[in-house]
Amino acid sequence: MATTTARATDLCRVARRASRALASLETGIKNAALEAIALALVDRTDEIVEANALDVDAATAAGLRPTLIDRLTLDPTRIAGIAAGVRQIAGLADPVGEVISGFRAPNGLDIRHVRVPLGVIAVVYEARPNVTIDAAALCLKSGNAIVLRGSSTAAHSNAILAGLAIDAACSAGVPDGAIGLVAGGGREELAELAGQEGLVDLIIPRGGEGLKRALQAVARVPVIYAASGNCHVYVDASAGIDAATAIIVNGKVQKPSVCNAAETLLVHAAIAEAFLPQALRVLAGSRVELRGDARTRELAGALDVIPAEESDWATEFLAPVLAVRVVESIDEAIDHIGRYGSGHSEAIVTRDTEAARRFQRDIDAACVYVNASTRFTDGGEFGMGAEIGNSTQKLHARGPIGMRELCTTKYLIEGDGHVRP
Amino acid sequence: MATTTARATDLCRVARRASRALASLETGIKNAALEAIALALVDRTDEIVEANALDVDAATAAGLRPTLIDRLTLDPTRIAGIAAGVRQIAGLADPVGEVISGFRAPNGLDIRHVRVPLGVIAVVYEARPNVTIDAAALCLKSGNAIVLRGSSTAAHSNAILAGLAIDAACSAGVPDGAIGLVAGGGREELAELAGQEGLVDLIIPRGGEGLKRALQAVARVPVIYAASGNCHVYVDASAGIDAATAIIVNGKVQKPSVCNAAETLLVHAAIAEAFLPQALRVLAGSRVELRGDARTRELAGALDVIPAEESDWATEFLAPVLAVRVVESIDEAIDHIGRYGSGHSEAIVTRDTEAARRFQRDIDAACVYVNASTRFTDGGEFGMGAEIGNSTQKLHARGPIGMRELCTTKYLIEGDGHVRP
Repeated sequence: MATTTARATDLCRVARRASRALASLETGIKNAALEAIALALVDRTDEIVEANALDVDAATAAGLRPTLIDRLTLDPTRIAGIAAGVRQIAGLADPVGEVISGFRAPNGLDIRHVRVPLGVIAVVYEARPNVTIDAAALCLKSGNAIVLRGSSTAAHSNAILAGLAIDAACSAGVPDGAIGLVAGGGREELAELAGQEGLVDLIIPRGGEGLKRALQAVARVPVIYAASGNCHVYVDASAGIDAATAIIVNGKVQKPSVCNAAETLLVHAAIAEAFLPQALRVLAGSRVELRGDARTRELAGALDVIPAEESDWATEFLAPVLAVRVVESIDEAIDHIGRYGSGHSEAIVTRDTEAARRFQRDIDAACVYVNASTRFTDGGEFGMGAEIGNSTQKLHARGPIGMRELCTTKYLIEGDGHVRP
Repeated sequence: MATTTARATDLCRVARRASRALASLETGIKNAALEAIALALVDRTDEIVEANALDVDAATAAGLRPTLIDRLTLDPTRIAGIAAGVRQIAGLADPVGEVISGFRAPNGLDIRHVRVPLGVIAVVYEARPNVTIDAAALCLKSGNAIVLRGSSTAAHSNAILAGLAIDAACSAGVPDGAIGLVAGGGREELAELAGQEGLVDLIIPRGGEGLKRALQAVARVPVIYAASGNCHVYVDASAGIDAATAIIVNGKVQKPSVCNAAETLLVHAAIAEAFLPQALRVLAGSRVELRGDARTRELAGALDVIPAEESDWATEFLAPVLAVRVVESIDEAIDHIGRYGSGHSEAIVTRDTEAARRFQRDIDAACVYVNASTRFTDGGEFGMGAEIGNSTQKLHARGPIGMRELCTTKYLIEGDGHVRP
């Protein structure tokens, strides 16, 4: 079996070497490697569950929160799900070599702008061991070498997962060093990785604010920060009551712990009386804690609505808590979102084409929805296949980070001995 | 006349406000503003020359190098050239609103991925006052507000140029604050600009290594560094002698001071004897200083070729100096470029399709040429119109930075009340 763990710097060096061969590896070999990884996951499920139990037991003994232990835990169903994800990536189009544009320049040169791998991508992550495989599969298919730095909490799980991925990939013809797992999941390894200018092309953190801040303090290589999302649903004067209710309930309730969940409901004053009592009742019935402005509280009747404070508008609750505000106009809604939003996902519910167009034009966010839930911001839902996170930054990648976003481009130029006059 | 200069922070605040209106400004208004700027440049040529003379006189008195004084100097011909550049930008397609891709997702949502302005772009630059107008025009057409920080050396020139651009743009209907010039061209203003997180979306430095290092030390907002270029021409075994000679001479001699000039010539051993004596003779005849490896010096006959040192392979001479090396194979050439190249522009001269394909695939650079001079790496030559520099970084923009690269994207998603199951 290949060495699965080593020091960050050494892994980055072999990853750099591997990245040269990976960049032009045939799609067929990459897909065969992904299929081999999926097979190995299923074949070795018992071993994985056993290794994972060591991590889960230690985490339980250390008194980790139940939600963290849940994220850490692998069972045969979850392992089968990870394997299915790998097969799905094998089924996606290879982004490498895609011609983004091609043209003959006025000087007669034939120019193609093509997608090529970034090179070496480092992924630093917290408890979830599934990231080991998800990230490795995405990087492999997009022709990038990957250096993984998981958390110590998941050390046994990550070691067996990375080990089987490396073995399976190598057996299919992927170069040695294409996948590496850093020994140790501490801040020291983070800093070592983050300082590999020239060896690492991009670092992607997958984890909470603490991890992001730690990385920000030391990063010298480029980072794409997966985003926090303070997402809004704005119910326009012309909205259908039932559609608006369904969209805010879905945005808030379906999975409150994720970045594309709705955090604030804005309601046009003209529809507030018809809409809010019903919507608030359904939300309260779904055990959502409501924090409203004065007008919302008036319209809430007997329902319990806490007075919203200034800080509530700026908070990503990531929990069944919703801030609610009545606005006088679409302008006030757009201003509110411009002030408090994090540029992730924003939705309008409306039947008015002018309002829809206005909202999509003037909201400055990665994803702007008309008559759909913010919960759709996801690489899978967008038909990009898997994703490695969502970006709210404006450079390089904005929105779901799929395989194309793990690539860079180059220009290929052909002439007949052209020289510049 | 509008205020042309103010403190960086104040300018960034008004630029941020202006950027919201600019993002959806009609193309017709932007083009009218560009036309008004071009007209004002021509109409007020005498005033510009007068203001410029103050800078040139002060620079001369201070003993600045002649090349810097040349860059600083404006005359009616150069001003007409700047005006023509502005009109050319007016003639380019508006990048804002361009649909990059659009599709119906499997869930039935209609999704468009569209280009939108970044918001506020800061451009920091050295002596060349033409950058004031070039950068303002590119940012205006791409819907971005711009905050300019020129050098103190060009203070009078920049003030009149920015002032007339602001007046002309505002008279055409561009919002106040869309163009701003920071008062003062020192390191303090640089640091102030570079710390405007949330107000400035991108900083682009245009200047030498000193400016880049100063920015690197203080930047907290994203930066795209215009690149240095250690560019190579590789003459393959199958190359035509005359084409190869023309391409290396063009790459080295036509304009040695720029980043896309060739710095090293690599020659396949099989063609060295037939090619090098002729090529070196032409290069020496063009007053190029040659620094060669042992084999090159053998083949140079009576020509003066200095022994190349290790450091020569890594140097961007930006001068009529060329390093020359004979390699045993295309692999050795690719390895050499991988080791010493800066990822800017690399060229192969060949008649062999396999070598051409191999070189384009395995060279990791922004622009990879077959049978053409590296000197073509340029937004204008690529049909992108003007450019604001060339990037060798891999994220966001690689190669010429044109108007598209001054944009970000957003996803516009439309549904019929879609909620996530």
